[in-house]
Amino acid sequence: MSKRVTDELGNMEMDVISVSSSRRSSENSTYVHKVGKPPKKTLLKEIGCIVKETFFSDDPLRNFKDQPRSRKFVLGLQAVFPILEWGRHYSLSKFKGDFIAGLTIASLCIPQDIGYAKLAYLPPQYGLYSSFIPPLIYAFMGSSRDIAIGPVAVVSLLLGTLLHNEIDPSKNPVDYRRLAFTATFFAGVTQATIGFFRLGFLIDFLSHAAIVGFMAGAAVTVSLQQLKGLLGIKIFTKKTDIVSVMRSVFYAAHHGWNWQTILIGLSFLAFILVAKYIGKKKKKLFWVPAIAPMISIVLSTFFMYITRADKHGVQIVKHIRSGINPPSVDEIFFSGEYLAKGLRIGVLAGMMALTEAVAIGRTFASMKDYQLDGNKEMVALGTMNIVGSMTSCYVATGGFSRSAVNYMAGCHTTVSNIVMSGVVLLTLELITPLFKYTPNAILASIVISAVISLIDIEAMTLIWKIDKFDFVACMGAFFGVVFSSVEIGLLIAVLISFVKILFQVTRPRTSVLGKLPRTTVYRNIRIYPDAAKVPGILIVRVDSAIYFSNSNYIKERILRRLMDEEEKLKENSQPRIQYLVVEMSPVTDIDTSGIHAMEELLRSLEKRDVKLVLANPAPVVVDKLHASKFHEMIGEDKIFLTVEDAVKTCAPKMDLEP
Amino acid sequence: MSKRVTDELGNMEMDVISVSSSRRSSENSTYVHKVGKPPKKTLLKEIGCIVKETFFSDDPLRNFKDQPRSRKFVLGLQAVFPILEWGRHYSLSKFKGDFIAGLTIASLCIPQDIGYAKLAYLPPQYGLYSSFIPPLIYAFMGSSRDIAIGPVAVVSLLLGTLLHNEIDPSKNPVDYRRLAFTATFFAGVTQATIGFFRLGFLIDFLSHAAIVGFMAGAAVTVSLQQLKGLLGIKIFTKKTDIVSVMRSVFYAAHHGWNWQTILIGLSFLAFILVAKYIGKKKKKLFWVPAIAPMISIVLSTFFMYITRADKHGVQIVKHIRSGINPPSVDEIFFSGEYLAKGLRIGVLAGMMALTEAVAIGRTFASMKDYQLDGNKEMVALGTMNIVGSMTSCYVATGGFSRSAVNYMAGCHTTVSNIVMSGVVLLTLELITPLFKYTPNAILASIVISAVISLIDIEAMTLIWKIDKFDFVACMGAFFGVVFSSVEIGLLIAVLISFVKILFQVTRPRTSVLGKLPRTTVYRNIRIYPDAAKVPGILIVRVDSAIYFSNSNYIKERILRRLMDEEEKLKENSQPRIQYLVVEMSPVTDIDTSGIHAMEELLRSLEKRDVKLVLANPAPVVVDKLHASKFHEMIGEDKIFLTVEDAVKTCAPKMDLEP
Repeated sequence: MSKRVTDELGNMEMDVISVSSSRRSSENSTYVHKVGKPPKKTLLKEIGCIVKETFFSDDPLRNFKDQPRSRKFVLGLQAVFPILEWGRHYSLSKFKGDFIAGLTIASLCIPQDIGYAKLAYLPPQYGLYSSFIPPLIYAFMGSSRDIAIGPVAVVSLLLGTLLHNEIDPSKNPVDYRRLAFTATFFAGVTQATIGFFRLGFLIDFLSHAAIVGFMAGAAVTVSLQQLKGLLGIKIFTKKTDIVSVMRSVFYAAHHGWNWQTILIGLSFLAFILVAKYIGKKKKKLFWVPAIAPMISIVLSTFFMYITRADKHGVQIVKHIRSGINPPSVDEIFFSGEYLAKGLRIGVLAGMMALTEAVAIGRTFASMKDYQLDGNKEMVALGTMNIVGSMTSCYVATGGFSRSAVNYMAGCHTTVSNIVMSGVVLLTLELITPLFKYTPNAILASIVISAVISLIDIEAMTLIWKIDKFDFVACMGAFFGVVFSSVEIGLLIAVLISFVKILFQVTRPRTSVLGKLPRTTVYRNIRIYPDAAKVPGILIVRVDSAIYFSNSNYIKERILRRLMDEEEKLKENSQPRIQYLVVEMSPVTDIDTSGIHAMEELLRSLEKRDVKLVLANPAPVVVDKLHASKFHEMIGEDKIFLTVEDAVKTCAPKMDLEP
Repeated sequence: MSKRVTDELGNMEMDVISVSSSRRSSENSTYVHKVGKPPKKTLLKEIGCIVKETFFSDDPLRNFKDQPRSRKFVLGLQAVFPILEWGRHYSLSKFKGDFIAGLTIASLCIPQDIGYAKLAYLPPQYGLYSSFIPPLIYAFMGSSRDIAIGPVAVVSLLLGTLLHNEIDPSKNPVDYRRLAFTATFFAGVTQATIGFFRLGFLIDFLSHAAIVGFMAGAAVTVSLQQLKGLLGIKIFTKKTDIVSVMRSVFYAAHHGWNWQTILIGLSFLAFILVAKYIGKKKKKLFWVPAIAPMISIVLSTFFMYITRADKHGVQIVKHIRSGINPPSVDEIFFSGEYLAKGLRIGVLAGMMALTEAVAIGRTFASMKDYQLDGNKEMVALGTMNIVGSMTSCYVATGGFSRSAVNYMAGCHTTVSNIVMSGVVLLTLELITPLFKYTPNAILASIVISAVISLIDIEAMTLIWKIDKFDFVACMGAFFGVVFSSVEIGLLIAVLISFVKILFQVTRPRTSVLGKLPRTTVYRNIRIYPDAAKVPGILIVRVDSAIYFSNSNYIKERILRRLMDEEEKLKENSQPRIQYLVVEMSPVTDIDTSGIHAMEELLRSLEKRDVKLVLANPAPVVVDKLHASKFHEMIGEDKIFLTVEDAVKTCAPKMDLEP
């Protein structure tokens, strides 16, 4: 104990009295911990670890451990159908919440579905079909409690654009529909495959910033498409970029927009937006915006029926086939030229749908703090779309707006999806004929009001504030979607995101450290102006793993810092640098190129008579230094656990002028 | 001062007496440094910094600062033509070294050049041309003192393969040659452009491991190609993959190999390899392997001339056009369909040539410890190839073997290149007719012996030991080249290298930390078994920047670590976790997705009544936490400079059962 006291006092002295006297004091300090080496792993074990962390990082089988076989079977069944687990604790009070939530989202989704089907160039009933079967499947297999399933704007737009490139729906509606089911089938297969093989991390490669930009761009594009319905334009471009659309709009202006349509559309759009505003201001009135679309439909349809304004050029829905989903297994292309096209479109749409659903699922899971297994969720979504494709549905997923309403209406479980599904069933069987006189302009208003909240100015501002590079990705995606097409926007977003990662790995920061007064802590002297450099020792921190893409840069940057420092010291005729301490805390890994760079650094330093010292290399790095025998080249005694240890050991060995 | 002592004693006590009593002691510890924020930068300045670090990280204009205009002009001239700088200190003793080195590399390169030209499917004199003009240009513009310029095996092979895909040299030799010059021209333009716009970092994306594998694969492929000459096979495949070549070889076996050719070829191959071995064993005899090829040529040519074995089927060179390089400006395709092809081939060959030259330049620069400006070097190489393409040369670059000989022969400056160039000039003017009877088999032996040292088993073993993933990249490149083609090998190598970077950013390590006894240092408890956990506090370190690609994984991994820990504590009925300290030293950056993940983590922890504490976030991270107001959500007092500070502050606030 007494030794400790002298030691601590010694350290302290060193700080206070200045380093020139540190030689004496630090002879006492023998508490230099050795740097640890990780336990040796066999190759198989190492590969096993990588595989586990990549695919099973969430340890999905943890519950299965040490259980009898019958219990394992039950657990397995519950894993595939979570309803078997939570269903046992289901209660009437929960059902009350779910019932109300289900009714609310049904009243929101029915008008939306009809509008979204139009975005995908499909007859309106297909939107309703997609809100009937998929939510039912999801209710049994999904593990998110808050997601509400159905067609969504962005996926409908993407699907519509991609399908439209292959087949013109106005000329060949049957093949178009068949290709849509084919794409839906493969979207489901893609989703289920990704989930089953636990490749869910793939969707993480679309960054938050890119999604924000992409969604905003898609919202603008969707809204622009609605101008057709809202202004009552008859001849409209099939392209989605803003230039083509605006040209269509102004071209149509010469031939006269339909003022009755505009009047009806704009007044109901205003109504719905006001309702939205109310819902936003008072959280308790969340149901106002939720039922506003339905009210608009009822009012406008009634109004149209009375005035027969359709005779004055106001376009109406005209016909929705009534009855539930017809089977469509036979309609999927399992061979022929459309197979490959359907596959490609399906993969894209499936990935996009996944990204949206998983983002929503995660948001609500973290709000209610329950675990969500992304991969299991993907299997559920995939199965739902595979079944959907066989029952005349197109790609469904979890939608932003309806899930938020579901959450706010107080849903407890996926039963709300079942309730919604039931309401849609009734609608299909009974009410569809009543939609006959619904003006298209109302549907356009509903879609615009639904997608407008995808334009998240607040998030964009935040991205701008936090990370300029992210903002570039965000804007790239936005303008890509608006000025070119959905696919191009997606591509731009992914590319910029990757470039960002590579950039960070290519040009990492290095900084010169100094000792914070009265501590044993060394920090960047630019950020902490009171951090003091140690005479004769230059401490440099490298802020990245050292890889082939940056190893040469890091080496040269360190040497340059040394040369700059030496120049400065020479000017002030101060003692020269004798030790270069590289603080390696942020260096989480090193590869063979990195080792070579370190060797070159060592060689250059030897030529200058400067000794290289490493502080706090990570265990993996230590391991690789050993494997390459670098620790022998540098000297085992030149690797320290902390910068403080390194400085304490090096400082007394130096021959500094007073 | 007395306060400090009590404080230090207080701290110490805390360690020794256990944490339950720490409440009292740590009330004294007020030396908690505030976490620094980087100074605010304007957007322009920030962009400026990024641009500077990306393109001008080596600060190439530092010498120009504060100089009068005339001096700046001289410096600029010296920057383009380094010979103007070192030429002023050139001396006779240096020339002696350069002269001997020049003669040595000339005797090595002349036989090689003829063999390499054959690899590129060009007549032998073009190899010599490429060792005459380019080294001269480089001597004036290059800044590496050790590189010896000329055609090299790998680039010749790559160029030959790519050109051959477009034009069959046996059917249309003129267009083939013209395309070769076109490709060389664009290779030079590519190199000069990359250098001029300081994009040199691009070649860093080919990792060391990939280069090792690629070079070994290329060496095998080149050697296989030599079987044609060595075995005297007349009909030989034009493909380069091992399967096609071996099929050719065995097919030819039925029709009889030429035993005279084999005898001559193998015996001289043995001779050269023995010479190589001697040179390797005794560094002083470096000249033995250097002149062995020339001796082989002289002996075998003389032998052939006497025996006229060419009448027995031994193939000979037959004719080399004598005289220096004819101009070839008119032969470059500046329009037509071959322009684009030449461009593509040129870019590939130029990049490959750059990679080899820069790798060599760097190696020798670090061995002699002088600075090498990679970008300037690229401009020199590019100019040299542009001029070369106009004087009947094909792509030249710095070669491994001849540069090593140059270095060992004691070269001092690029004057050795001038000497070599002079010897090649004399050869072209006077000696070429004498090569008429040189057997092709000897050229094959020389090429094989030259490329065989590109197969670096030692480096591969080291790569295997250091980094298994690097080894995969290495083998991918190797087998890609051997079993498919040079381009495929290159592509595989680049892809695997990128995947590695992405993988590391997608699945970073996290580890639980404990306090090392008698220090204030916290380290991974798996590596340091004596590191002790602090009751009630879980300390987790995140080993990577937090980006969109890993933010969700990191969040879930931290939560899982917490849950695991809580489970363990519950089993042993120990006090529950009340603080989660995230050690962020290795977290060098965070993006908006990362901030969102942190917010979700905070929300989940709040639900569990665990407080989130951050230790040592990097300045950039602090900046972004502030920008996103996360520091307000978490509480400004929850961000500490070190883990020790965090623990010291949190521990006393806890209510632990005794």
